[in-house]
Amino acid sequence: MVTRRVDLRSDTVTKPTETMRAAMANAEVDDDVLGYDPTAACLEREMAKIMGKEAALFVPSGTMANLICVLTHCQIRGSEVILGDYSHIHIYENGGISTLGGVHPRTVKNNEDGTMDIDRIEESIRDPSFEICYPTTRLICLENSHAHSGGRCLSAEYTDKVGELAKKYGLKLHIDGARIFNASVALGVPVHRLVQAADSVTACLSKGLGAPAGTVIAGSKAFISKAKVLRKTLGGGMRQVGVLCAAAIIAVEENVGKLEGDHRKAKILAAGINNIKGMKVDLDSVETNIVYFDILKESGTTEDELLKKLEVHGVLAMPEGPCKIRLVLHHQISEHDVQYTISCIQKIVTGAPDKNGVN
Amino acid sequence: MVTRRVDLRSDTVTKPTETMRAAMANAEVDDDVLGYDPTAACLEREMAKIMGKEAALFVPSGTMANLICVLTHCQIRGSEVILGDYSHIHIYENGGISTLGGVHPRTVKNNEDGTMDIDRIEESIRDPSFEICYPTTRLICLENSHAHSGGRCLSAEYTDKVGELAKKYGLKLHIDGARIFNASVALGVPVHRLVQAADSVTACLSKGLGAPAGTVIAGSKAFISKAKVLRKTLGGGMRQVGVLCAAAIIAVEENVGKLEGDHRKAKILAAGINNIKGMKVDLDSVETNIVYFDILKESGTTEDELLKKLEVHGVLAMPEGPCKIRLVLHHQISEHDVQYTISCIQKIVTGAPDKNGVN
Amino acid sequence: MVTRRVDLRSDTVTKPTETMRAAMANAEVDDDVLGYDPTAACLEREMAKIMGKEAALFVPSGTMANLICVLTHCQIRGSEVILGDYSHIHIYENGGISTLGGVHPRTVKNNEDGTMDIDRIEESIRDPSFEICYPTTRLICLENSHAHSGGRCLSAEYTDKVGELAKKYGLKLHIDGARIFNASVALGVPVHRLVQAADSVTACLSKGLGAPAGTVIAGSKAFISKAKVLRKTLGGGMRQVGVLCAAAIIAVEENVGKLEGDHRKAKILAAGINNIKGMKVDLDSVETNIVYFDILKESGTTEDELLKKLEVHGVLAMPEGPCKIRLVLHHQISEHDVQYTISCIQKIVTGAPDKNGVN
Amino acid sequence: MVTRRVDLRSDTVTKPTETMRAAMANAEVDDDVLGYDPTAACLEREMAKIMGKEAALFVPSGTMANLICVLTHCQIRGSEVILGDYSHIHIYENGGISTLGGVHPRTVKNNEDGTMDIDRIEESIRDPSFEICYPTTRLICLENSHAHSGGRCLSAEYTDKVGELAKKYGLKLHIDGARIFNASVALGVPVHRLVQAADSVTACLSKGLGAPAGTVIAGSKAFISKAKVLRKTLGGGMRQVGVLCAAAIIAVEENVGKLEGDHRKAKILAAGINNIKGMKVDLDSVETNIVYFDILKESGTTEDELLKKLEVHGVLAMPEGPCKIRLVLHHQISEHDVQYTISCIQKIVTGAPDKNGVN
Repeated sequence: MVTRRVDLRSDTVTKPTETMRAAMANAEVDDDVLGYDPTAACLEREMAKIMGKEAALFVPSGTMANLICVLTHCQIRGSEVILGDYSHIHIYENGGISTLGGVHPRTVKNNEDGTMDIDRIEESIRDPSFEICYPTTRLICLENSHAHSGGRCLSAEYTDKVGELAKKYGLKLHIDGARIFNASVALGVPVHRLVQAADSVTACLSKGLGAPAGTVIAGSKAFISKAKVLRKTLGGGMRQVGVLCAAAIIAVEENVGKLEGDHRKAKILAAGINNIKGMKVDLDSVETNIVYFDILKESGTTEDELLKKLEVHGVLAMPEGPCKIRLVLHHQISEHDVQYTISCIQKIVTGAPDKNGVN
Repeated sequence: MVTRRVDLRSDTVTKPTETMRAAMANAEVDDDVLGYDPTAACLEREMAKIMGKEAALFVPSGTMANLICVLTHCQIRGSEVILGDYSHIHIYENGGISTLGGVHPRTVKNNEDGTMDIDRIEESIRDPSFEICYPTTRLICLENSHAHSGGRCLSAEYTDKVGELAKKYGLKLHIDGARIFNASVALGVPVHRLVQAADSVTACLSKGLGAPAGTVIAGSKAFISKAKVLRKTLGGGMRQVGVLCAAAIIAVEENVGKLEGDHRKAKILAAGINNIKGMKVDLDSVETNIVYFDILKESGTTEDELLKKLEVHGVLAMPEGPCKIRLVLHHQISEHDVQYTISCIQKIVTGAPDKNGVN
Repeated sequence: MVTRRVDLRSDTVTKPTETMRAAMANAEVDDDVLGYDPTAACLEREMAKIMGKEAALFVPSGTMANLICVLTHCQIRGSEVILGDYSHIHIYENGGISTLGGVHPRTVKNNEDGTMDIDRIEESIRDPSFEICYPTTRLICLENSHAHSGGRCLSAEYTDKVGELAKKYGLKLHIDGARIFNASVALGVPVHRLVQAADSVTACLSKGLGAPAGTVIAGSKAFISKAKVLRKTLGGGMRQVGVLCAAAIIAVEENVGKLEGDHRKAKILAAGINNIKGMKVDLDSVETNIVYFDILKESGTTEDELLKKLEVHGVLAMPEGPCKIRLVLHHQISEHDVQYTISCIQKIVTGAPDKNGVN
Repeated sequence: MVTRRVDLRSDTVTKPTETMRAAMANAEVDDDVLGYDPTAACLEREMAKIMGKEAALFVPSGTMANLICVLTHCQIRGSEVILGDYSHIHIYENGGISTLGGVHPRTVKNNEDGTMDIDRIEESIRDPSFEICYPTTRLICLENSHAHSGGRCLSAEYTDKVGELAKKYGLKLHIDGARIFNASVALGVPVHRLVQAADSVTACLSKGLGAPAGTVIAGSKAFISKAKVLRKTLGGGMRQVGVLCAAAIIAVEENVGKLEGDHRKAKILAAGINNIKGMKVDLDSVETNIVYFDILKESGTTEDELLKKLEVHGVLAMPEGPCKIRLVLHHQISEHDVQYTISCIQKIVTGAPDKNGVN
């Protein structure tokens, strides 16, 4: 008997749907490095429209998308970027902006809701009259939804304020929108409105939207034109990339509508786990498709032990530091999977002897 | 009436075949960034075997493949790489090894056959006892076949000699094998033998082999493990990348056998053009699938004019400097296309009045 | 009548003494880039002994000293350094470690006393098993005394604990000891004991010690040998540098003993200013030669206004952010200068009409 | 009996003269990082005038001077510089422009006289319409006199032509003028005329001019202002640097006039060595103060052996590759030293048995 598999490690684990596979099989393609792939062009046009920007560019991953954006805004040696101390760019992208791009990061504390205090951002902007010992601030980065805070959303109003600050000081604003569609759905605000103040924004197609690969960058025509050169330098230019873009087009068409369900299921999962003795979830923080839960001492278990036991039951999850586990919902997780997951944790914590009898 | 289209700009322009499209539609996939995509694993295993190395890694492009290899061999600040003054890495990859990786290039003259004199390579190796003012030589790069010399092949013997030199001085040897399968077929020597002396090698799947995208790096397990980290840093990690790898598996299975035909057609094309008054091809240099031809003064035309007129006839090609044009054969060019191309050039040069009547 | 000049902008403003000038005029020198300057060698030997390390190296400035140390510990691409969010390296050195060296900084909050919580440091060390998305932590940096906290000292015990943490995780420990002699004198602990746990340490000779220029790096022989190469790459190798080293030798011999007086005068200055209505100094924080004071609202003045008026009286100081001024004592400031400065501030704040009659 | 010492390793080995030492002892100085050192300002003003540029900047070394200039012209990521394949920047400066600055070098063959063919330079300029795979050419570098070719001089006319080419393509021109005063004296052309076409130029003060340390950069005010920031980032800002500048002012005043003698002595030395059986000097190439000589097979000795034996006689020189030795004249080498050196080589080669009896 094969154990059921419930993969909650990330929303990146979704498999392409039948429609996506058919789209890949039938995509009209050409050499995109030479600039001729019609399907890539179609996706980029569509995404530019959704994000309310002049132009867009398909790149292999969210990491490359952010790297390209930061480096394109910071082309001049000696640039500094202001970003959250728990932003994905700062924590999870190998320090690439410094390692490869020589950009110096200046971090501002991320609040529990993923924002940074506007005052703290302003304080961190370097005074250009001390350029003799200061790098030059050129960019502010936001992340919406903010992964490390559990997928919480930045409002359009907050983003606008950061945008005004950026303008006031002649800085650019970039939004890491890996899960911007989740934020848009949760807030009930269109993507283009959420990123209105941004000079560049990324949107991942292979997270909640379920495309096999790829992220889109959007910005002005001039920005995208520079970004394209950097994509080539980094090695992100692909030939008949239309096959991936075809799947991404379907992802945008068919799966944005499913995000609301993911958020609903996340709330159910969060409430269910919070009801288990020894487990704790900050329910208010579950705004989108991510659930973090704390393993209290009284549970008598640890994150490593719990993860291993869950894996025996086919439930896959990720550690998020000591005594903390992360679960991410996506369209290939059913309500039944959610209930199953809750019951697995319940049984593990209460010490049900028969592991195989869970389901 | 639609004009026939003969796209000779590059072997990167091939469209995926029906078998590739079917493979993409049916590929078993998982999250490759987390390390679980079975189709990616299958391709990498197969390619490692073909290239005679312990391990392999799929990356989005040849540019990224070379960048990863050079940077992985040159992890330490202050590294210098010896490479051909007309190598693809030096000329056509945006200077990425310096721009992003801080690696200092030292060039050696590429001979007409794509080799560099072994003596000149040896002279260029830095004496470590002068490290106070010298960077540290860490790597030698070869390119097989060598694009800028018209796709000429480096023999296994030559490569071995460079490998011995590298060993003698404690250096690594990298081979840019974007078209290593072409070299293998032309020389009648298996790929693994051609790259036996190399510590790392790349092979492009989306050139002559016709996959929609991707290049494979091969090397030791330890090397590939470092390369994988750098692929992530650069943003080349893709999620359900198995869809691309599935097409690449077909490319390797079905299209290596077609390269011999490409080379034959290249020779026919070269001879045909060389017979046209005012056009000149060094026939001996046509060893694989690339044809360069010179436009002599007596032809009364220029590369720009000829390219434009060819385009009217549906024949696409690339300029390769003043009075020089590059044509690249691939499996989607028929013998008829070759004859058509010759006749187009003939008519253009001899000034046939009716452009539409060519075919 | 020439106004008296009291330069409290920094301890870098000291003029070389007569003994130093004589030493420069008589120094035995040779080409130090070739490795033959006897006076440089003498200074380096002496400083290595004082700092309790195998070897030492003279470099033009503290900025270069820190840059060399961080880059030498972080030679491998993808390195991360943990350092204080208000450390001199992070704030005042142009972001050079990233800009020029590609090193990614991870900051930990500097407490009011210049320390970072050991737990927070430990949390910030990257887990190498997630190297796929994390840079590699290679170095922790401390600063003793800590400039931004007002020259407060890190104890040997605290430093040892950070050293143990570093060892536990296989990291290196660097101490920015721009004012390590001040810390040593204030704590009554020899320099070599204060930096015992460090793999590298810098000590500035042109701050409190009054040499015209230069900082010394100390560490193991192997470390200094690498540092020397990097000094050359950065352009910090100087030919007959013995002329500067001769002055530095005098600085160490004659001026360490004067630091205690600087600290005493700093306390007098601090107390004097704190007694002025509208001015506030945290007296406990004045441990060495730096005094920060806050300009309260009730004073009716601002830092800009106060600085300008002080300049009229010949007193030079530096702003340290809104409503905050920094004063730095050194051996060329007399007790009379201190009293004069206090009385100037007093008169400015209480609005004495006759600016020229202050003294 | 102490052996006479004739140090011909470089013109960097000169010891400061009595006048220089007195100047150092009496220099009026202040904190130059804060911008107040009057002696530094004086030197910089004077040098700007000599070099015919708006402004100048004192830096610790020629390596830093070139590094600052290349990086200041190439502030934008993705820059390429065209320079000689045997230029000092490319060969002897640790690859710093790439290693620290990420600038990609494109080399052009240095002719025997230190020039690069103008056509070859022009061919190497990247076509901006292929920016998708090309770095952006931003700078051309010349070196005058050219060390590796034996100190040969570039004429004002040649330099002007390169300058015109640079202008035509919107590039900058930098001149590494480490020995520009030698070139000026040898050609009988003022320095400002020789570097008229350059956007930046360096002049070393511690080579033939004999200052203990330092190089000056000259250029437009805007350029020097950016260069100053980079000097700080690199750690080249020094506090009371006036002590070094005071010596440098004397060097310029007193020692430019001595260069003609150095050149004359170089010719005598060259002719003398060329007369020795088994030694060969290209006399025409001795234009300034550098002499290269080849050790022919018939001499029965090697460069290592000859260098060692010369050292026994107190004559110090440097190897310049297999069977080649470099001698550099400077104002502390007398005509007698020159004759002594010739006679030493003569005796060593003809096998005089008594080594101690040479002089």
